[in-house]
Amino acid sequence: MARATLYVCMTCKAGQPVTEGALPPGAQLHAALTAGDPPEGVDIISVECLSACTQGCSVALTKAGAWGYVYGRLSPENAAEILDGAARYAASENGLVPWRERPEIFRKQSIARIPPLGASPAILTPNARKVSA
Amino acid sequence: MARATLYVCMTCKAGQPVTEGALPPGAQLHAALTAGDPPEGVDIISVECLSACTQGCSVALTKAGAWGYVYGRLSPENAAEILDGAARYAASENGLVPWRERPEIFRKQSIARIPPLGASPAILTPNARKVSA
Repeated sequence: MARATLYVCMTCKAGQPVTEGALPPGAQLHAALTAGDPPEGVDIISVECLSACTQGCSVALTKAGAWGYVYGRLSPENAAEILDGAARYAASENGLVPWRERPEIFRKQSIARIPPLGASPAILTPNARKVSA
Repeated sequence: MARATLYVCMTCKAGQPVTEGALPPGAQLHAALTAGDPPEGVDIISVECLSACTQGCSVALTKAGAWGYVYGRLSPENAAEILDGAARYAASENGLVPWRERPEIFRKQSIARIPPLGASPAILTPNARKVSA
């Protein structure tokens, strides 16, 4: 099973002014996510911008052969749920964690997803119900 | 240079009710994008959902070793601009087309982007100006 990467946008201001010397919200989220050990199979890596600034704070999940996901409107309080979702993503076959097993923020705060490179029509157009996308 | 894939969400309703028998807005966008020859180096592939439903219609651009991008709030009238942006993306080193060379809709209607797998810190945190993200 390929390892998953959880990218955390470090520079996100979440639409708020940041007091000089204070950590931007994105850096606060990164600190919360890396306060303990990372989940099994997950590397947590900081990135400067995920171009989701109007929906920050944001994170992206990706791994070889899997759908990549971007989630937004996140805060440090969501850290445990994000890590739980990342662990389930890492353990999945192609990034598609069954709908009911996803943390609520992953169900409700997905910004977008990108198909795996070279994905088959069966993966791209399974005629799946929209709710499980 | 790796080929780029332009994924088009076929099922997108763009938040509107679709009259029975009418093509959903996503399928209309796909038809507009595939009406002529695809740009050099670009494959255009349909997909059922990019999980960007609140910002549809949407497309995703991806290629091996490159940042993946998702764009939204698109309509068939944007087809030429999307194809131009896809061609520039395909010709780029790692998906990063210089800001001024991007079509306006790519500058203004980016929903999110995902780093390339195994990207180096130089790519992930270049301390680049946010405007070029």
